[in-house]
Amino acid sequence: MFMCQIGTMPLLTFEGIDGSGKSSLLKLLSEHLKKSGHTVEITKEPGGTDLGVELRRMLLRTTGATPCPKAELLIYEADRAQHVETKIKPLLAKGVWVLSDRFADSSLAFQGAGRNISREDVIWLNEFATDKLSPDLTVLVDCDVEVAAARREDRKTDRLENEKKDFHQKVRSAFLEIAKENKKRFLVLNSEKSSTKELLSQLICHIQSRGLL
Amino acid sequence: MFMCQIGTMPLLTFEGIDGSGKSSLLKLLSEHLKKSGHTVEITKEPGGTDLGVELRRMLLRTTGATPCPKAELLIYEADRAQHVETKIKPLLAKGVWVLSDRFADSSLAFQGAGRNISREDVIWLNEFATDKLSPDLTVLVDCDVEVAAARREDRKTDRLENEKKDFHQKVRSAFLEIAKENKKRFLVLNSEKSSTKELLSQLICHIQSRGLL
Repeated sequence: MFMCQIGTMPLLTFEGIDGSGKSSLLKLLSEHLKKSGHTVEITKEPGGTDLGVELRRMLLRTTGATPCPKAELLIYEADRAQHVETKIKPLLAKGVWVLSDRFADSSLAFQGAGRNISREDVIWLNEFATDKLSPDLTVLVDCDVEVAAARREDRKTDRLENEKKDFHQKVRSAFLEIAKENKKRFLVLNSEKSSTKELLSQLICHIQSRGLL
Repeated sequence: MFMCQIGTMPLLTFEGIDGSGKSSLLKLLSEHLKKSGHTVEITKEPGGTDLGVELRRMLLRTTGATPCPKAELLIYEADRAQHVETKIKPLLAKGVWVLSDRFADSSLAFQGAGRNISREDVIWLNEFATDKLSPDLTVLVDCDVEVAAARREDRKTDRLENEKKDFHQKVRSAFLEIAKENKKRFLVLNSEKSSTKELLSQLICHIQSRGLL
């Protein structure tokens, strides 16, 4: 069993642009793990805690006061600090698999690359908010921005999803770059031509090869 | 005229424990400056902007989800980033005197000393959120914690004001320490035996001696 920093269970995070298919894959993996007898908790950022739900509303609404880029990042980090301290750490300590829909890499991609906040500053803030807790595995579900935009068309979009194509392109490139720099932690899956079930098979293989299962 | 970093008008901040009398002094100074023909804007942290009003509610309410210490600090810093970027900087650039009821030193005292978050981390966050904008003058209205508590008795108190005596003692000591380390920027006034009018006279003298008026 691979040991995460504070418990015996792994923390898996799922990253990618909106519409990439990461949330569907996360759910399928959770079902698979549960069937195999594991205790699993799905969570997300922003909004994984009661306080986070309020912060999420503030971040993603399309009306009301809009945070400036630094305030936006700091609200995401507040959500993350609360998430790690009051939910993720206690779950891992109890022996639960934690699957999080977005985590610290999202701030690097969206607020760092997308909003032009320096990479060093976002990394500092991520380390402060997570207390240096790093995922055991991060799955980047990669996808062309036009394909993802078409998938989002049939759902109500939020403030960040409503950003222009150029923004999503920057975010996608940033995710691929982060994955390249953290090869040991990342698994990159392309969701353009594979079904979620096919992606799940690849993911399970990888998890087994990493000794997490 | 003393030059603040980004305009020709000064940024004055007022610090102290709750009940110290800083807000009353700030109002009196504002009236004095207006009578002398200056354009003055009173603002505050948290809650100096529309977004800040929402964040303030989240921070100071006595019911609902309570932020962990790091999340609390990050929400204060989000409020500060929005405040500096969307309100303080534009006002200073327009030639307005800005008087703020609390600013970055409050996070050092309350979240740093009060919540035991490392001084270096709070300083980093303050510099990030303020974009290194520093007040031209910070007035610390100092007061014994029991005297301040008695003054708060006739008003509805918030979550931070409800903290125990020991917390307020730590915050008071921290403010005095910060003032000692930043002698050029700080003016310390003791509000225990002087009336607000007497404090105002001392403050105006100091402002004049600093060449701000």
